[in-house]
Amino acid sequence: MMIVADNLQVTSRRVSQAIEHRDAETIRAMVTQCLKAGAGAIDINPGPLTREPEDKMRFLVETVQSVTDKPLLLDTTNPRALAAGLKVVRNPAVINGFSLEPAKMAEILPLAVAHDVDIIGYLLYPDSRVPADEGECLVVAAALFEAFQQAGLARERLIIDPVVAPLIWDDGLRHNRAVLAVIPRLADLFGFPVRTIAGISNLTTGPAPYHKRIQAEQAFVPMLAAAGLSMALMNMRHTESVACARACNLLLQSEVFAWEAMENPGLG
Amino acid sequence: MMIVADNLQVTSRRVSQAIEHRDAETIRAMVTQCLKAGAGAIDINPGPLTREPEDKMRFLVETVQSVTDKPLLLDTTNPRALAAGLKVVRNPAVINGFSLEPAKMAEILPLAVAHDVDIIGYLLYPDSRVPADEGECLVVAAALFEAFQQAGLARERLIIDPVVAPLIWDDGLRHNRAVLAVIPRLADLFGFPVRTIAGISNLTTGPAPYHKRIQAEQAFVPMLAAAGLSMALMNMRHTESVACARACNLLLQSEVFAWEAMENPGLG
Repeated sequence: MMIVADNLQVTSRRVSQAIEHRDAETIRAMVTQCLKAGAGAIDINPGPLTREPEDKMRFLVETVQSVTDKPLLLDTTNPRALAAGLKVVRNPAVINGFSLEPAKMAEILPLAVAHDVDIIGYLLYPDSRVPADEGECLVVAAALFEAFQQAGLARERLIIDPVVAPLIWDDGLRHNRAVLAVIPRLADLFGFPVRTIAGISNLTTGPAPYHKRIQAEQAFVPMLAAAGLSMALMNMRHTESVACARACNLLLQSEVFAWEAMENPGLG
Repeated sequence: MMIVADNLQVTSRRVSQAIEHRDAETIRAMVTQCLKAGAGAIDINPGPLTREPEDKMRFLVETVQSVTDKPLLLDTTNPRALAAGLKVVRNPAVINGFSLEPAKMAEILPLAVAHDVDIIGYLLYPDSRVPADEGECLVVAAALFEAFQQAGLARERLIIDPVVAPLIWDDGLRHNRAVLAVIPRLADLFGFPVRTIAGISNLTTGPAPYHKRIQAEQAFVPMLAAAGLSMALMNMRHTESVACARACNLLLQSEVFAWEAMENPGLG
């Protein structure tokens, strides 16, 4: 399971200010911290970018890849920003992402085809509702895969995000149990070992004390890891949760155990 | 997933001294602490009891059930001690446990039949070796279930322990991945939803710093919980791991989420 940093997001005041002022030093420092904490990829989430979308996305992509050659996830709903980012990206790139929503199908998916890059597909209904249970998730997954294939990309380009729900949603617990059940079934449904990603920070959306957030993440991340999740999008400042994800990799992927490995960053 | 306290074990100097001196106050204080920390049952592990087995087991059972009516696991290989404990136990009782080992089949399993109590069956070869992989675990499970049924107990009396291996064993990681795979398959193999138990403290047998033990437990317990484990035998003084187990129950079993529930003891 690769750990992907979700720290570079516009909801952070530090990030939004750095984007506004094209403050490359701040962005570089954040990325360096994330890599040191064990991130295997960086999600770049500048929001919908209503003003200067192209210039801001170019700035972010170029700044991040000046300190790392790890994969970059371009995480915006703005197709103009995505196109601009894809034009300058040299690192492996992942578009984050599309869904059955008509606008996404029409404007985002074709960008993955044009640039021949990986793309994340969200298990959401065309109106962006979250499927209610395992069965609905699988129906949506089948429809998404069908649409994806019609676009003409190699099937290995697809990464499925089954959409972790906030625990405080009315049906959040039930939905997240469906997520755990769906992940190991996708390979059979699609006929190949499709990669998966989940946004861990979604789990604790809303006000909650830090240690309870950590408790929830530490309980859910190993469940996702054991279900076969390929990529965990995480807040790298949640050091206990990140350590937990690394311990999961040790338990699930290593052949030889050593206590020393338990603390090495970068096992993801 | 019920949390079972493994703290009452003879390897603890405090416990061995309390048994030797029939110090009921110390035992009662320990049990009360375990219950307060969220234990749903108490494992009584006085070792093989080479001297005064009957008297010591009677003392332990009577002392523990003087402070709780929760289930007691009688955890010794000594059939005389087990018989003595079963004679005085009033709480729900579980014999911990038998395996395909001939002595256990001959002397332990019949006690469960005679007293009509639950019994834990270990997935071990007759010579006490641990099965190497998922397939071997399932073969052993089938043989154990067959032997169990021939003894004439109601099938619901059986609880399977797939035997968590120490991480530092040569094949410990591989074996524990087999444990995760086997747990959800037992219901199909046996034809009913058989209960399962796992000894979490086994995972970190040997010298290791406390925080690394906790990291390993916090990674593995949620994987076991998601696999469907019924009972987790844990050191209740590992408060972070116990909190993690409770968080797992919240994520996997609750219908309604509330952050307040994250810290309530006794969710197990």
